Amino acid sequence: MGLKEIGEFGFIRRVSQGCLVRPDGVVKGIGDDAAAFRAAENQITLLTTDLLVERVHFIRDRISGFDLGYKSLAVNLSDIAAMGGTAREAFVSIAIPEGVPLDYLDQLYGGMKSLAQAFSVNILGGDTTGSRRDLVINVAVTGEVPEKEILFRHTAREGDIIFATGPLGDSRAGLHLVLHEAGPESPGFRDLVDAHLRPRPHLPEGRFLAGAGGVHAAIDISDGLSSDLGHIAEASGLGVVISAAKIPLSRHLPGFCERFGFDPVDFALSGGEDYVLVCTVDPSRARTLAEQYRALFGRPLYPIGRMTDSRRLELETRDGTIIAFTPSGWNHFQTGDLHDNHSVKS
Amino acid sequence: MGLKEIGEFGFIRRVSQGCLVRPDGVVKGIGDDAAAFRAAENQITLLTTDLLVERVHFIRDRISGFDLGYKSLAVNLSDIAAMGGTAREAFVSIAIPEGVPLDYLDQLYGGMKSLAQAFSVNILGGDTTGSRRDLVINVAVTGEVPEKEILFRHTAREGDIIFATGPLGDSRAGLHLVLHEAGPESPGFRDLVDAHLRPRPHLPEGRFLAGAGGVHAAIDISDGLSSDLGHIAEASGLGVVISAAKIPLSRHLPGFCERFGFDPVDFALSGGEDYVLVCTVDPSRARTLAEQYRALFGRPLYPIGRMTDSRRLELETRDGTIIAFTPSGWNHFQTGDLHDNHSVKS
Repeated sequence: MGLKEIGEFGFIRRVSQGCLVRPDGVVKGIGDDAAAFRAAENQITLLTTDLLVERVHFIRDRISGFDLGYKSLAVNLSDIAAMGGTAREAFVSIAIPEGVPLDYLDQLYGGMKSLAQAFSVNILGGDTTGSRRDLVINVAVTGEVPEKEILFRHTAREGDIIFATGPLGDSRAGLHLVLHEAGPESPGFRDLVDAHLRPRPHLPEGRFLAGAGGVHAAIDISDGLSSDLGHIAEASGLGVVISAAKIPLSRHLPGFCERFGFDPVDFALSGGEDYVLVCTVDPSRARTLAEQYRALFGRPLYPIGRMTDSRRLELETRDGTIIAFTPSGWNHFQTGDLHDNHSVKS
Repeated sequence: MGLKEIGEFGFIRRVSQGCLVRPDGVVKGIGDDAAAFRAAENQITLLTTDLLVERVHFIRDRISGFDLGYKSLAVNLSDIAAMGGTAREAFVSIAIPEGVPLDYLDQLYGGMKSLAQAFSVNILGGDTTGSRRDLVINVAVTGEVPEKEILFRHTAREGDIIFATGPLGDSRAGLHLVLHEAGPESPGFRDLVDAHLRPRPHLPEGRFLAGAGGVHAAIDISDGLSSDLGHIAEASGLGVVISAAKIPLSRHLPGFCERFGFDPVDFALSGGEDYVLVCTVDPSRARTLAEQYRALFGRPLYPIGRMTDSRRLELETRDGTIIAFTPSGWNHFQTGDLHDNHSVKS
């Protein structure tokens, strides 16, 4: 049985199963002109949206439906995390070309619902339609955050310590393995692929940072550390200096880079899609915050540098030299080879 | 100068101009991980989203950038109107293939901003990316409505009078003219094309109906009167009987239908994309409501039938015969000729 047989409404009924995981506060979900839900008092509603297009962001025969669905939602949840918010409602628009197996679509929604359930997010609506050639997915997610705790990009201050909530560069390594169909030569390689395909949105970490006090700015690493730190620096009218020796790397990345001849620091700086958070913290609060973070999450909050008044992006290399770097982020309008340059990005 | 030259962020800066038309209550618009805005007390936040795909919903060389942008937003505003809401914030995701002239994109955002400004809607964010082949636009819109006034589909009651806020069938006639490149033989034909390309969202009408009391259910006519009334009937567990003689037709539609050999009632029933509202009203309130409506808007609220307990969809023909009709709505997964079957639908 395929899409043509079950029709649009049949498909909606099919994918509606399991979408409402937190009915409290929901006035109307799927099945009306718009979804309606209660906004809490003194709470900000957040909304973020990401569009994923086949052959630009993903290659359908290289990613399972489950992973594609998971990731489509994960990149949005990560945006809510970066604002310090709690994710609430998701809206999924999808354009489906002929010939996509229904099973692939079921898996796709399965991946989304699995992640949605883990973070108590409802899928409350969206739009389904046909497509002539490419599978296209747009996910919009709302969130809420107490007004006084919201974390922006433009509010970093000179002297702030820059922290990262997890290792960087793994996703880029996983992408290489996916694109080159390199077998999981070691169990560690599987972890790198997972980092690329199923990034965990750092929502609890974002909420903690938002409520802890002393955190001035935050962003999630989607385009790459260099580019995303560039956003904070530019928006705040400041510069950054980060220390190559302090950039957190997973235990699997150095072995991978040695095997394939890559530079781990380069992957960490410009790889992107790690979906960890980077925040800037008042120096007087930095030590206590890092201790609280470790006590709460059982993992370190990694100090990687500080905000400067130079307006430059600078890297302190392992031998102590200071070199400038540029935001080598993603440009969606670049043309070129699909491989390694056009994969799942948000 | 093209997209490649200005880059993604240049493009965002470019389209950001004029997006914020009502800054009050906006905490953060374009330029962070997510947009943030204040939710009013005791107000429901509404959100709707529509995805438009080239060669499925529109043919790029048959629609101006301005009209495409206008319509992409209009179909969403109409959904907010159908819930009785006030539209608030819009989020635009767009996937752009190589070779789309920047001027076309400027016009596209121009069409959106023109409509957004008219209804005091902010464009607060979105996503921009590349596409391999087709232009794809997803618009998400939030709205708000007092909790006690929200209009659903599932709350129609037996005996309710069914009203329409405007004429039906014009959009389908305009589509025919657009697809067959029929010149505007008469000024009236231009109005039909406008009805298709620039439908006015009935937001003030929706707010009036929501606040007037006695209106039990509402929907906007996107798929077609037969299909959309079918949604109300099915959701409410009821039937409908509508009168062919009472279906409002514009003064231009009969002439068009005579010229091209179409049936106006068929166009009104199954044409779709009229984006007028249809509501069901307590019979005890119907007369007063229609009088108030006419006093306020200077146009009639058209009674077209009533809700029954039959669970059937029935049409009373001009000679008094009752015939059954089916929801002959749009099925986005149907294949077939693009012309007349795959045009701008939401």
